[in-house]
Amino acid sequence: MKLPRSPLKNDTFLRALQRLPTDYTPVWIMRQAGRYLPEYNQTRRRAGSFLGLAKNPDFATEVTLQPLERFNLDAAILFSDILTIPDAMGLGLYFADGEGPKFERPLRDEKAIAKLTVPEPEEDLRYVMDAVRQIRQALDGRVPLIGFSGSPYTLACYMVEGGASTDFRTIKTMLWERPDLLHHILAINAQAVTQYLNAQIAAGAQAVMIFDTWGGSLSAEAYQRFSLDYLRRIVSQLTRENEGRTVPVIVFTKGGGLWLEDIADIGCDAVGLDWTIDIGVARNRVGSKVALQGNVDPMCLFAPPEVIQSQVAQVLSSYGKGSGHVFNLGHGISQFTDPDRVRVLVDAVHQLSLPYHR
Amino acid sequence: MKLPRSPLKNDTFLRALQRLPTDYTPVWIMRQAGRYLPEYNQTRRRAGSFLGLAKNPDFATEVTLQPLERFNLDAAILFSDILTIPDAMGLGLYFADGEGPKFERPLRDEKAIAKLTVPEPEEDLRYVMDAVRQIRQALDGRVPLIGFSGSPYTLACYMVEGGASTDFRTIKTMLWERPDLLHHILAINAQAVTQYLNAQIAAGAQAVMIFDTWGGSLSAEAYQRFSLDYLRRIVSQLTRENEGRTVPVIVFTKGGGLWLEDIADIGCDAVGLDWTIDIGVARNRVGSKVALQGNVDPMCLFAPPEVIQSQVAQVLSSYGKGSGHVFNLGHGISQFTDPDRVRVLVDAVHQLSLPYHR
Repeated sequence: MKLPRSPLKNDTFLRALQRLPTDYTPVWIMRQAGRYLPEYNQTRRRAGSFLGLAKNPDFATEVTLQPLERFNLDAAILFSDILTIPDAMGLGLYFADGEGPKFERPLRDEKAIAKLTVPEPEEDLRYVMDAVRQIRQALDGRVPLIGFSGSPYTLACYMVEGGASTDFRTIKTMLWERPDLLHHILAINAQAVTQYLNAQIAAGAQAVMIFDTWGGSLSAEAYQRFSLDYLRRIVSQLTRENEGRTVPVIVFTKGGGLWLEDIADIGCDAVGLDWTIDIGVARNRVGSKVALQGNVDPMCLFAPPEVIQSQVAQVLSSYGKGSGHVFNLGHGISQFTDPDRVRVLVDAVHQLSLPYHR
Repeated sequence: MKLPRSPLKNDTFLRALQRLPTDYTPVWIMRQAGRYLPEYNQTRRRAGSFLGLAKNPDFATEVTLQPLERFNLDAAILFSDILTIPDAMGLGLYFADGEGPKFERPLRDEKAIAKLTVPEPEEDLRYVMDAVRQIRQALDGRVPLIGFSGSPYTLACYMVEGGASTDFRTIKTMLWERPDLLHHILAINAQAVTQYLNAQIAAGAQAVMIFDTWGGSLSAEAYQRFSLDYLRRIVSQLTRENEGRTVPVIVFTKGGGLWLEDIADIGCDAVGLDWTIDIGVARNRVGSKVALQGNVDPMCLFAPPEVIQSQVAQVLSSYGKGSGHVFNLGHGISQFTDPDRVRVLVDAVHQLSLPYHR
């Protein structure tokens, strides 16, 4: 049964991703529902754990909406973990105290790799799809909902390393020694991500973003073969129209500033930028092909309000006139951020961007 | 008293840095004297600790020469720590078990920052200068000796954070909140680095390299003001001629691939590249101004010998014909590397580069 849905009241974010005229520059914040918000930490305590939170659609809906109550954001993003897919593949996601995500059964032998299968989103990842549906209901057309996934290579990093890594020695050894095994994992991941994102779109996600957090750790040449080729494959198979609207696709490779032309060429609508690239330079390079999302340094939120405003002004001025820019940080917000500083940033984007859209 | 010095038998490295013709592409490895070598670990055990090793010129000389005994390297690099300068400034460098370097007294208040003074190399860092002199004697003209220092911004990261950091929150908060304080630290660091490198050159270093390990964590605009401006200041004040030879200067900003033109413009002879940039692309952008050093992924040494050879071939072919390339990794060698793989790389560079120099 499909519930009737309220019309979208604020489509600025979706229009900017398609480089259509808007009244102002839309803004959202990567990891906007997160530990810097006291209300998030309260819900998390009630949920008992991070996974308890992420796997429960009621809690996921609650925290997804929390930042919208505080700030005038132009999009909501599904609250979920980046590693839901490998968890559904049976690798056993867990969080050790004070450490990042880990897998009980990292992919280390050929047999386990051969046995990998693509999860069925509405079965194995039902809790995510339920969360998408529930969040869409709760949003009631206020702003669009972004669905997301990790990229095949980024997921593979965690799957092979068994957790976060600083040098990616295990996966890179596989990349050199047994590229066939890594390509097998990546092909399965690409299928899984495609089905996962298409299921999120069917469930109500109005835009999707692929986070290639670790693609930037590869050499220029390895990036093409082990990350970008799979991103291209996914993008070409995503549902691009739903509920009578375009569903834009954002691709973000952290540290990918050198490869912008290649990323802009895979068929996505927008490219995410980290803070190491000047957004004006990026626009000159690929702005005729894609929208750009970013890109102030998340640490800028530790600055006094007037400095935050001047940093916002600088990014807006560097991008220049016209549509095609979604304001964001260049990476997820730090858990130590004062929420009041986020308000300063969001309001500054809305006010200071007006002249660029006249 | 100046001891008479043997003539240099292999100047390929120095010639390549000046883009003068050479018979083959010279090669050395960042962190070539290090934990991947069993003989290094033996010396370190005898020294009792890392600092006991680094601060004793006899031990420093011994480990500096160790990789030259194993591999046909074209340069030696002074064995020392990157944090000798802040240690000499009184911040109290120490190494906690299994962790990186730390400072007992990180720079956190205005008073301590105001009191910072530039160390006198031949007094406060005498052990480094003695090591340079002793290594030059021991090298006996075999290959040139590289001196080095951390960049002002990279040193400041450790000095303000008190150790390694993943988000650089403390120094970036200072950057936004009190840029005057950070500029004061950086100005003192720039003076200190200049005097330190000039003293190393006077003591016998035949080329110098500045490691800007953390400059790549800055935004494009902040990089210019907080790292590159100080690098430029240093480079303009370095001794560029000694013992009747040019003393080339290499500048390496990890993650600086987007800013190559700016780096190549500060007056250095060569720019170090990490593995995320294609060296052919880099040569097209700045090869008429500077030599290039790099740039295979250090994890490539975990590949089978034939893959290492093909990676070497790829970098050589991407750089192309002619001089101006010093082969290296794109970052320091991993402690887990098998030394036999290093031999494969070094020999492959020498053999496979011959056709490019005919």
